[in-house]
Amino acid sequence: MRNIKLTIEYDGTRFYGWQKQPNVITVQEEIEKAINKITGEEIKIIGAGRTDRGVHAKAQVANFNTASRIPADRIKFALNSQLPEDISIKESEEVGEDFHSRYSAVGKEYRYLVYNNKTRSPLLRNYAYYVPYKLDVENIKAASKYFIDTYDFKGFMSSGSSVKDTVRTIYDFSVLKKDSTIEFRIKGNGFLYNMVRIIVGTLIEVGNNKIKVEDIPNIIKSKDRSNAGHTALPQGLYLYRVYYNNSEIRK
Amino acid sequence: MRNIKLTIEYDGTRFYGWQKQPNVITVQEEIEKAINKITGEEIKIIGAGRTDRGVHAKAQVANFNTASRIPADRIKFALNSQLPEDISIKESEEVGEDFHSRYSAVGKEYRYLVYNNKTRSPLLRNYAYYVPYKLDVENIKAASKYFIDTYDFKGFMSSGSSVKDTVRTIYDFSVLKKDSTIEFRIKGNGFLYNMVRIIVGTLIEVGNNKIKVEDIPNIIKSKDRSNAGHTALPQGLYLYRVYYNNSEIRK
Repeated sequence: MRNIKLTIEYDGTRFYGWQKQPNVITVQEEIEKAINKITGEEIKIIGAGRTDRGVHAKAQVANFNTASRIPADRIKFALNSQLPEDISIKESEEVGEDFHSRYSAVGKEYRYLVYNNKTRSPLLRNYAYYVPYKLDVENIKAASKYFIDTYDFKGFMSSGSSVKDTVRTIYDFSVLKKDSTIEFRIKGNGFLYNMVRIIVGTLIEVGNNKIKVEDIPNIIKSKDRSNAGHTALPQGLYLYRVYYNNSEIRK
Repeated sequence: MRNIKLTIEYDGTRFYGWQKQPNVITVQEEIEKAINKITGEEIKIIGAGRTDRGVHAKAQVANFNTASRIPADRIKFALNSQLPEDISIKESEEVGEDFHSRYSAVGKEYRYLVYNNKTRSPLLRNYAYYVPYKLDVENIKAASKYFIDTYDFKGFMSSGSSVKDTVRTIYDFSVLKKDSTIEFRIKGNGFLYNMVRIIVGTLIEVGNNKIKVEDIPNIIKSKDRSNAGHTALPQGLYLYRVYYNNSEIRK
């Protein structure tokens, strides 16, 4: 059996998230169906991150074991011919048998796009969070710096998660404004359920002067979800990269 | 009667173009229906450019006369509350009675996005032209410079146009490569039917070595559509800006 690593881009608009569930369309199920068509095998793939409904991926990673003899770098073309237009395998490669897309990951980068304008954007309606009121981007930038460190991020996790250890490290967090868009780029060793969306929702409330910049350390320290801001909408979120090498994530 | 100028963004994916036609959904008709809902008037709007099916606009311009007393800058919000998600009025303002969105225009900027990668992009499937083979971007850039001038662009016009005077001036044309995307930005005093898409299709054939860089002047001079390249797909094209002031377009 060979272990195949896939790098996957998808437009999450139409999907009920990554993870397979009964009666709804998911990214995982579409890829498993495509693998079945090209190999004849009934396979379960493992994804690095379980993105929610409406969330996008530029480079989700998944792996699976197969007895198929299709050359590893040709698997992407074979799968793409079977997959719907809103999923594309960008890379396929053979990896060692101990590679596990989730457990082998040492970190991830997420990006989040906000569209901040008095009127909505048709072109970004499924690809950014539309915020119509004025945001103070300098305050958002200042507040974002407080998140870069190792903390117990329990207050930035939605309920419904069974995770026990809620300590995570954010290595880098930058905020880029260009015309009416604000892009958040956040890199860390791992993220709790909805953590990126709650951090962005909190920063939007900083931009809107509902939360003060200097209150962020206490909000983190409180570990209380009710002190943080709202959960920003899913369509602005992109799983941008999954890291398997510590030297890469820290540069 | 007041003359109202609208600046409009739309995602062209779902529409059979700008211009109203029987039995199909068009941007013009959707806006006219929304105006009817807020003013009660049966109005015909005039668009600066008739974009084709699947073509997008960041800033199409249209105008219409109305007896309504809604303050000009509030009209955009009133219309947006009636319009579908893939159309948004970005600006609404009162202009002089002689303003005509098409005849008063002194030029336009179009942008065209190409996605050049071995595998397709789900996130750009409706927003860029997917070219899977390798393109020589330096050659494309060199060839693009030949288009900047005043020429008879008859060879870069699709049949079906009744336009007699086919002389147009291109003021500026730049080609920007970033990761797997190539963006074309072209500014001119006017564009013939499908002119931008045929220029881009020709440049893609330059990038693919089917047309030589140094042949571009002769292709233009020949005024023969069959010497130019193919018509690039509509989903990569954006009407980016309409100019009404000569000093702005030339800077």
